[in-house]
This record gives sequence, C-alpha cells and structure tokens, in this order.
Amino acid sequence: MKKILVIGAGLSSSYLIKYLLANAKKENWHITIADQSLELAKQKLGKSKLGTALLFNITNEKERQEAIKNADMVVSLLPPTLHILAAHDCIKFKKNLLTASYVSTEMQALNDAAQKANVLFLNEIGLDPGIDHLSAMEMIHKIEAKGGNIISFKSFCGGLIAPEFDNNPWNYKFTWNPRNVVLAGQATAKYLENGLLKFIPPNRIFSQTETINVTNYGAFESYANRDSLGYIEPYGLQHAKTVLRGTLRKKGFSQSWNLLVKLGLTDDSYTITNSENLTYRSLVTSFLSGANEKNVEDKFCQFFDLTKNSKDFKRVKWLGLFENTVIGLKNATPAQILQQLLQEKWRLENTDLDMIVMKHEIEYSINNKKYKANSTLIVKGEDKTYTAMAKTVGLPMAIATKLILQNKIKAKGVQIPITPEFYEPILKELAQNNISFTEE
Amino acid sequence: MKKILVIGAGLSSSYLIKYLLANAKKENWHITIADQSLELAKQKLGKSKLGTALLFNITNEKERQEAIKNADMVVSLLPPTLHILAAHDCIKFKKNLLTASYVSTEMQALNDAAQKANVLFLNEIGLDPGIDHLSAMEMIHKIEAKGGNIISFKSFCGGLIAPEFDNNPWNYKFTWNPRNVVLAGQATAKYLENGLLKFIPPNRIFSQTETINVTNYGAFESYANRDSLGYIEPYGLQHAKTVLRGTLRKKGFSQSWNLLVKLGLTDDSYTITNSENLTYRSLVTSFLSGANEKNVEDKFCQFFDLTKNSKDFKRVKWLGLFENTVIGLKNATPAQILQQLLQEKWRLENTDLDMIVMKHEIEYSINNKKYKANSTLIVKGEDKTYTAMAKTVGLPMAIATKLILQNKIKAKGVQIPITPEFYEPILKELAQNNISFTEE
Repeated sequence: MKKILVIGAGLSSSYLIKYLLANAKKENWHITIADQSLELAKQKLGKSKLGTALLFNITNEKERQEAIKNADMVVSLLPPTLHILAAHDCIKFKKNLLTASYVSTEMQALNDAAQKANVLFLNEIGLDPGIDHLSAMEMIHKIEAKGGNIISFKSFCGGLIAPEFDNNPWNYKFTWNPRNVVLAGQATAKYLENGLLKFIPPNRIFSQTETINVTNYGAFESYANRDSLGYIEPYGLQHAKTVLRGTLRKKGFSQSWNLLVKLGLTDDSYTITNSENLTYRSLVTSFLSGANEKNVEDKFCQFFDLTKNSKDFKRVKWLGLFENTVIGLKNATPAQILQQLLQEKWRLENTDLDMIVMKHEIEYSINNKKYKANSTLIVKGEDKTYTAMAKTVGLPMAIATKLILQNKIKAKGVQIPITPEFYEPILKELAQNNISFTEE
Repeated sequence: MKKILVIGAGLSSSYLIKYLLANAKKENWHITIADQSLELAKQKLGKSKLGTALLFNITNEKERQEAIKNADMVVSLLPPTLHILAAHDCIKFKKNLLTASYVSTEMQALNDAAQKANVLFLNEIGLDPGIDHLSAMEMIHKIEAKGGNIISFKSFCGGLIAPEFDNNPWNYKFTWNPRNVVLAGQATAKYLENGLLKFIPPNRIFSQTETINVTNYGAFESYANRDSLGYIEPYGLQHAKTVLRGTLRKKGFSQSWNLLVKLGLTDDSYTITNSENLTYRSLVTSFLSGANEKNVEDKFCQFFDLTKNSKDFKRVKWLGLFENTVIGLKNATPAQILQQLLQEKWRLENTDLDMIVMKHEIEYSINNKKYKANSTLIVKGEDKTYTAMAKTVGLPMAIATKLILQNKIKAKGVQIPITPEFYEPILKELAQNNISFTEE
C-alpha cells in the first residue's frame, strides 16, 4: 500500500482529493488529508474509508516530520512560501513532493539534495503554471519535430465567469483569490517583442492590452504578466523573437480597471486613518482634487475625460463606489477597501459556474514559410465545489501523483513538467476528463 | 570649555562647521569633527586650532561611546537611520543631541528617557524640515495674536539652480542628493483641501501641480509632498480647511518629468539584466511597445501624444535618452540608470550657484473678513562649498547649537523647533546672515 499525504484541504483541493479517493482502491493507496482545520479535512474526505483526516500544523516540526515520514509521497497545497518546510523534510525522509506553485529560489536550491536523495520535487503542475507548460511544450515539440522554427510564442490564461452566468457590466466575478486580482499588475511586466526586450511599468499595464479572439466565446483582452522572459529557457525559445504571457479578461475590463488603478484604489502600501467610518463615496472624493461629496461623479468624469453614458463610468458606478455606504473596515489600505467591495459585487452566486480560458498562439517558419498554430482550452465548472479552477489545478496534480507512484516518471530533483514523460500521459488523461485543447 | 561633537563631515556640514569654528573662541568651544574619512574631517577643520578631526565609525560602539561621553553636545549629520545609534548613547551619557532629520518613530520613543535625563533632542532643524517650521510658526502665531483664524496653509520649498546659471531646458540641476530627486513622488501624497482629506497616488503626483509665482523670480510649480497631514497638529492647524506642502520646480519641469515616470525610468524595484551593455536608446526602446532602434523617437512622441517641437520632447531628448551611448552600469535598476545620466546632465558646474526658494501662503479670517499672507525666502549659494543648501541646512543647526550651549533653550525631550524660544532667536540670527523672508 502507498500512502499519500495531502497537505491543505482548501478550495483548490476538491478535485485532487476526489480523484485520489476514486483511484485509491484500484491503486492500493491510503490518502491522509492534513489541514489546520480538522473539519475541512473531514469534509473533503467525506464518507470514504480509504483515507484519514489529520489535524495538522505545518509549522509544528514534530507533527510535520511524523506525517511526512509516514507517507510515500507528499502533495502540498500550502501557500507558496510554506512548501519549503515540507521540502526540507522530504529530503530528510526521501519522499517525492508535488506542488502547483512556481519554483522558488529556496526550492531550486534543493535540486542537488533532491537528486542525491533520488526523489522528485515536481512543481508548477496546476493550471497556470501547469497545464500551460504541458500543452505549450507539446505544441512546441510537435512544431520542432516537423522542422519548424518558432518565431513567436504567446500564451494567455484567465479564470472567468462562464458566459451563461456573466450578468454584470465588468463581465467578471471572483473565481479565485480576490487579493491577487486586486493587486495584479503592480510590478513591471517584462517580455520579448520582435527580438527586443520590453518592459511595461505598473502605471501602463492595464492600458497596454491586446485583443484575443476565442471561437464561440467572443473577444477577450490580455494584459501582460509579470515576467514572460523566464519562460524562454525552459521552453527552449532562445530563437523566438516574441515571447509574451498574459492574463485574460473579457474585452473592456482592463480599461475600466485602469481607472481604479489611476484613482489610487489598488494601492496597498498605506492604511487610511478612520477608514471604518468613511463611505465609499467619500473615499473616491479623497482621490480627486476639487471633488466634494456633491460633485464627485462630475469630477471623476472630468478627470478621466469620460461621459456618464460611457461603459467605463457605468462599470465604476455599478460597483457602488459613489454610494454613501460606510466602509466599516478598520485601518484598511485602499486595496483592502476595494477588495471588500468587489468581494460583494463580484461574488460567485451559488448556482454560478466559472470558466477557464487558455490560449497559445505560436508563429513558426518552415523553409522561410510562415505558419500559425493556435490552441485553445475552455473548461467550465461543475458546481460551486468542483469549479473549473479547482479541476484544472487539481487534476494535473492528481494525475502526476498517480504517475509518480506507478514509477512512470524517471525525472529526479527539482522539476517543472516540460518534458514528454510529463505532458504525454497527463494531457492524455486530462483529455479523458474533458480538459482538452482545440487546435486551429 | 564646552565640547561639541559633530558627526559627519559631508556636503551639508560646511556651513555648520564654519560657524562653529568662527564662534569657538568667543564661546569657549572645542569642536570635534568626526567622520569615517579622516581626510574629509581634516579638510572641514582647515587650519583652525579650535577643533580636532577624528576618524570615527558610528557603528563601532566603543568609538561612538568614547566620543559622545567626552562631548557636551552632539550634532549628528549622519544619514537619518543612523541618528538613533548616537541617540541611545546621548541618553546614557546625558548629552544634548541635534539633527536636521525628521523625527523617526524610534527617536520619538526616546522622549520620556530624554526628559528623564534632562536633555534636549532637537530634530528637524535644517532647511526643510527646519527653516520652514521656524518661519511658518512665526507667521501662524502672529496671525493668531491679532485674532486671525487660519483657513488655508500652504508651504513650498525647492532646491534649485540660481537663474544666472540656469542654462538647460529643464531649468534644474542637482544641488542635493540626486537619488532622492529621482525617487521623489513614489508614495501616495496626502493633504487637506477645503476640509476634505485628499490623496494623490504616485501615478499622478507630477501631473497635479500648482503654479507658484515668486516676485522677481517668475513662475514655479509645486508637486505635493508625501504627507502634509502630519503638520496639522504640531502647527496647531486643526481648524484649517486646507493644508498642503509641496516641492518647487521651475514651471514645466513636472510635466516633462512625468514622461520619464510613465515611461518607467524611475522604477527602482528591479534590476535590468545586461544593463551595462545596453545603450540609453535601447533602454527607452524597451519601454515602448512597437518601438525599435530606428523609430523610437516617433514611438515616444506617438505614445505621449507629443510633437518633436514640444518642450517636453526637447527636454527628454536633451538628456541624451535617445543617444547610442552605452550605459555601462551593471545590474542597475531603471532609476539608477536614469540617475547616472542625470548626474552628468544636471551637474552643478564649478562656477554654478544654487538657490533655495521657500514660500508660505496663508489665508486667514478676522471677523469673517478674509486675508492673505505670503512670505518668501530666496537664498543663493556663495560658491561650490558654501552652497545655499549647505547654508540653509547648516546655519539653523549651528545657531541652535549655540543657543543650547548658552542655556537659552528650556525645552527638554524629543522636540522640533516650533515654539518662540526656537524661532525668535534663530530667525533673528538667520536674518543677520541674509536668510530672511519677504512678507507680502
């Protein structure tokens, strides 16, 4: 019997745990679900006899080492900065480790030790990063196999609301960590364009979007992700002239969001005294010179050169930013106040389903003739627990867990899933679960 | 004999040390000039027999305590974060301490201990903060003495190039710490406007300027300082509707500077790989999507909606940002690269003189009738060593040192110079040294 330790039973674990429990009998697995809330761990376990719920504090060394020592493999769904605690013990007890997070410097530094311990630390095996690696590398290798030289690689991904439930003027609801959405775009974006290094500073990220059309789903737009340059080497794109990764929203979102950024509402660097007693209206008034409680809509439109009939103004107004509602949040940053409001307005209703959209756009040449290859993934959620986000993050992790326990993966050390031994079997099984790309 | 320990013999110490040495005989003082460069300390001492140059490392506890124990009073010209090291020893050995820096939280926390030790820790006694406190409080108290209620308080200050030597299109040269100039405006500005709290986020600080006219010196402009709200309580302005402090530049500067901000050149949060081999031209190209080495001027103008005949474009071009000059600076942030270029272009020539401009604008009412009071200070430098900046920072410190040693100041604990016992004698002696305000 193989013992799997899953650390973290939060939102993103639902699909992963469902898959592991469903395969546990056939594969002869025992699943330990460890969380700081025993309630949550038990809830995820359900009535299954094939696992155990464990009350667990990752920072408690004794509890952590005991749990890891007893496992054959560790799947960490912890916040990114905490993986490293598990990783050190996985070296010590020679256990494989899986995370869906970016490889941190600390994690990368364990490569030699992991190699020496003959274990695999597989990271970036969720959606983005994760499915993007798998699908992009399959495309890239296919193109290269037929003699193609990649000129341009662009990849876009967004967690959105499914069109059937898209009923607000922003065409957006929170389907993932709201804080990350509010704080997006606050670092300079870096990418490659026509052979030149390009930077977009935070003040322009949401005004420099590109339109991405997705068959049957209409027009989206993409704003540049923080660092596209880091993908050049692992993807083998050293000869590509353009490398860009971006986040997808429905068309029009970024221009309106940019108003909130310019106004100052996404600033997380200082707290506002007496914020709990302010209203959203008085907060907006504070960000506009010459504005007062009476004229704030006019001053807003004047400052941004908008009419009250514009979509941009209507979106901002719809959020309730001009309402006399009391904020009620103590010592809050503008970003925290905005997040509170958005969590109310962009809330996923009980019956709402989310949707993942991913698109790769590759240009390549064979014998000086140019070609384009596009590949699109659309995944819709099943319900509030089994969301598209939980599915696309959890399933690749679950499948990778199975492959590792079946000894079908040879790689050791700190890895990300960019080689055929990862993408071939994982993409195949994802497709069996209705996660498949449409190529054009 | 009273022994004065001056810690730091850099740029800002020239006037202070000159004054202390000039008064040492009459006042029966001995001046110890301590610096990590003995050379620099000796240079400031000159041929005077009334002082000693001391090689000194502030972080060496033994050296520090020895020097402080032997002094009657300590004047710290250290970088702001290092004052606290001297402050703790000044408590221990019961010595008065003087700095021209803002009161830090750590410094404020020593108030009780300083009171108990019966010593004065006088801070913010330079130019800004310093002369601004002295002169503003004198104005405010005068207005209040005749029954006036202050409605609006605005105060502006800038370190600039004297008009006779103002020969570049930016009407600006570095007369003080270049790094502070490059990184200015990167935090949200807070002020009070018509009774309402106002914020200006970094992305708009340089586009929200106000024009300040100074008789005989023409039109300046002001951008808001980081925190004007902190002045409300110490100045007793709780009933004022408007409280704003700003930095002065010659008119037009901010709009052009804002182009550099928007472009991304003031970003200090990341380093550019291979920066040493890039040219300024290629760097600017990196910040403009669609730009290449050939069309970068056009793309720049297009992006910012400028003509090549505009003052803004001419200013940017004059800096050499479109030149094929190699940057040569390793692993540099955009801000560091920009600073390097500006230090060349905005360099104070040997014969150049600097100029300090300070202006207070106060509106007040007596029996419902409104009045205005303006007060302006212009100080020009004498030469490259005795600059207006060194004079206006150093003289108030020097005079305060004298007053303290003469036991003419009663205040103890952590203080800033906002009461008559400070401003009356110091402003009087500053005026004797040609640092005097013109009231309108």
